[in-house]
Amino acid sequence: MRKRLIEIISIGNELLTGHTLNTNAHWIAKQTTSVGGIVKRVTVVRDEIDEIVSSMRGSLRREVDWIIISGGLGPTYDDKTLQGLARALGQKLVLNKEAVAMLKRKYSKTLNPSLTAARMKMATLPTRAKPLDNPVGHAPAVMVKHGSCIIFSLPGVPEEMMSIFAKHVMPVLKHKMGKLVRIETSFETTNVTESFIAPYLDRVVAHNPKVYIKSHPRGYRKGISTLHVNLACESSSRKSANRYLRKAVREMKQSILDAGGKIKQI
Amino acid sequence: MRKRLIEIISIGNELLTGHTLNTNAHWIAKQTTSVGGIVKRVTVVRDEIDEIVSSMRGSLRREVDWIIISGGLGPTYDDKTLQGLARALGQKLVLNKEAVAMLKRKYSKTLNPSLTAARMKMATLPTRAKPLDNPVGHAPAVMVKHGSCIIFSLPGVPEEMMSIFAKHVMPVLKHKMGKLVRIETSFETTNVTESFIAPYLDRVVAHNPKVYIKSHPRGYRKGISTLHVNLACESSSRKSANRYLRKAVREMKQSILDAGGKIKQI
Repeated sequence: MRKRLIEIISIGNELLTGHTLNTNAHWIAKQTTSVGGIVKRVTVVRDEIDEIVSSMRGSLRREVDWIIISGGLGPTYDDKTLQGLARALGQKLVLNKEAVAMLKRKYSKTLNPSLTAARMKMATLPTRAKPLDNPVGHAPAVMVKHGSCIIFSLPGVPEEMMSIFAKHVMPVLKHKMGKLVRIETSFETTNVTESFIAPYLDRVVAHNPKVYIKSHPRGYRKGISTLHVNLACESSSRKSANRYLRKAVREMKQSILDAGGKIKQI
Repeated sequence: MRKRLIEIISIGNELLTGHTLNTNAHWIAKQTTSVGGIVKRVTVVRDEIDEIVSSMRGSLRREVDWIIISGGLGPTYDDKTLQGLARALGQKLVLNKEAVAMLKRKYSKTLNPSLTAARMKMATLPTRAKPLDNPVGHAPAVMVKHGSCIIFSLPGVPEEMMSIFAKHVMPVLKHKMGKLVRIETSFETTNVTESFIAPYLDRVVAHNPKVYIKSHPRGYRKGISTLHVNLACESSSRKSANRYLRKAVREMKQSILDAGGKIKQI
């Protein structure tokens, strides 16, 4: 059975004060979707243990296949993700030898190579967690299994998160998800409003159960309503996905023309 | 007592496939924080009734003062926010006369003025919901009280969301939150890593309980570590907020200099 259901948890006050735009969750959603994952939910919480634990327990309760966490792995007082992870999983926090070796290697090249308490904090992991090497920063990431769920905890610094994702997360995702192709296409229409084409859209949706269709109003230009229509299809082969998608696009365009709209390819 | 705790719920598959970056949640977080709100959590869910209901019930269970929802108010089959809201609150969905009048006014100016079923859907609200006029689009927004919690449900189109927020949400927020000033400042340091200054940071944090201090690693430039340090303070007057913040900045900079770091104002 394919393991496709994913939840993303983003941790950091800066994401909830409007200071930082959550591009990490967006990037992770795009990457996982491209290999057949279905992101069910993104939860963003503050650097508070209770909030971190509650968000993780929520994801575990919903029995998703993957939880991908980012943020809160650093050495400072407000980096609490590993404490939260240990508590949510009912595991202890212990100094992980493999993680200590990773940190030792990294800091040996710096001016202050000593493994201070703050640095050792980054190697103090939940008992059954496996550290993942961070190719561009210091804090190791973490992988830990809980029942049938695989949890990755990645740093919040985007370059570090992306680099660990590419090296350690993507290969596991691809392996477990199997082959699944997702293709999508979009076009713009003018002259019809979303509410006017809604019943036509409903009919096309009913005829094309394998295709996901969504319209996004783009407002009015010179008094003329513009709509963006997005169609996406997933299938085990590119050929069948293309076939499903082409049929739905044809029917959707015809419906819009029937309703008096104009099609503008983008 | 100040009503400050906020949760944001964003609804839409496009936010979970990596298609659309969730700038709405970021903007709402920034706006609400600027008037003294504390955003506790952002939850992003798909256009599925069960997911919408579960996210709303979660926010209600956590007893926040405000829930600000965006997305899913349109006329198409996948706009399910009002159905979810009604179910989460245990209210029925009924045709709201005030909302019908709003739609009638808007569509009377268009080429197809008839209030079709799809359009009436946008005026079918939870029993005790109050419609809020949408200055730039069609779908009315909604305000509804549940116990001591005030819930706003806004459209997902950014221009519509922002315009309704400014007109209907901000005045209520300001009124209920009372006067609270939030100021923040940042500086950059080089020559010290986050893990090295962590114990110094801990001491400054302990001495300055009114100030929130956070460091963000910015990576290495020419082998030299750069850190961004952000300090924020909230108080009932700008004068006292400034006093708290200045003291913390002074101590933080001195600690960094003591640790061998360099300060770079930004």
